Amino acid sequence: MDAERFAKQRDFLLELDKEKSISRQTHILGLSRPEDDAEHAWHMAVLVYLLAEYADEPFDVGHAMIMALLHDVVEIDAGDTYAYDSAGKATEHDREEVAAKRIYGLLPDDQAAELHELWEEFEADETPEAKMVHLADCLQPMLLNFENHGADWIAHSVSYDQTAYRRAQVADASAELGEYAEDIFARAIANGWVRPAPDGNEPEGDSRE
Amino acid sequence: MDAERFAKQRDFLLELDKEKSISRQTHILGLSRPEDDAEHAWHMAVLVYLLAEYADEPFDVGHAMIMALLHDVVEIDAGDTYAYDSAGKATEHDREEVAAKRIYGLLPDDQAAELHELWEEFEADETPEAKMVHLADCLQPMLLNFENHGADWIAHSVSYDQTAYRRAQVADASAELGEYAEDIFARAIANGWVRPAPDGNEPEGDSRE
Repeated sequence: MDAERFAKQRDFLLELDKEKSISRQTHILGLSRPEDDAEHAWHMAVLVYLLAEYADEPFDVGHAMIMALLHDVVEIDAGDTYAYDSAGKATEHDREEVAAKRIYGLLPDDQAAELHELWEEFEADETPEAKMVHLADCLQPMLLNFENHGADWIAHSVSYDQTAYRRAQVADASAELGEYAEDIFARAIANGWVRPAPDGNEPEGDSRE
Repeated sequence: MDAERFAKQRDFLLELDKEKSISRQTHILGLSRPEDDAEHAWHMAVLVYLLAEYADEPFDVGHAMIMALLHDVVEIDAGDTYAYDSAGKATEHDREEVAAKRIYGLLPDDQAAELHELWEEFEADETPEAKMVHLADCLQPMLLNFENHGADWIAHSVSYDQTAYRRAQVADASAELGEYAEDIFARAIANGWVRPAPDGNEPEGDSRE
């Protein structure tokens, strides 16, 4: 064993532990506490595996799973930006790029390059794998929020228009799950958990567009 | 979309959320709280990916990752049994078999069979993938415990003999990482974090053997 190489891999693995202390806005079922980035990534990777059959394009499930597991690593330095926080979203990518350099830089050069590239593939959102991971990133909290009777949408007074980016991300990877996401929000609006779009207006899209 | 099929997949995904509330004995870095099953599984899957190069036999990394992500699902019903709790270990497998039937039974039949089989492959511990997941299951808490100055070993007054199963599980998948695990415990003993083996005796193995 190359002790120096292994020490770098161990340091990276230990650095990742911090994802267990990064809270998200979404709560676990029952609302006892917010979920954290590590739990979210775990849940996403399982979702990618389990719902692979709905993807519009064939994709490499293993590649998408490791992308899901590591997609939030940059938040160790850059923090979690809530999907509906437009001020935070404006500076998000620059902060995350600096974070990616430092954190992936803990690894041996070959793995640093490999995982930095994997994160850039996620960010570019062009490959079938990246699209499926974005689907999971959006669908997983939708499922939790709906099951929690919309508590997080209500707390942030989320409107249907603001959910356009997330609905589009789901539909971009899977037409079938895109329809399901529309159905979730139709029911959330009917239940008074999400504010409806202004009468007669098409959804206007949210801060990510 | 087959609505009934999807409803089963969604129910299983929501059932998994409970893993976020199952505490382990191992603490996250800094000792602020125990880690939970979801975080542990996430950390293991990343470890499997990152340390694949040390495996003695080639293995399918994607297959091992999904096995790692789901290996503790049965603890939703059967609870977490601490590695050094011999009374709990005696009944562990029967309790887990009942749990596997119920929880995987939430899924459509084809996926229920597939994931039940994946868990049985993990339990049998014979394939290179299962061995690598067992390695991760043992090495991940070792790394955390050591970095936490042995706090969890000290709290449970763990002796070197009791760690035989876990050291063997690491060595069974990777001779190199097996040596590293021996080195961790040699240093933990030197630091007074783990009780040494009785003078002149070989390690006797722990309750799992």
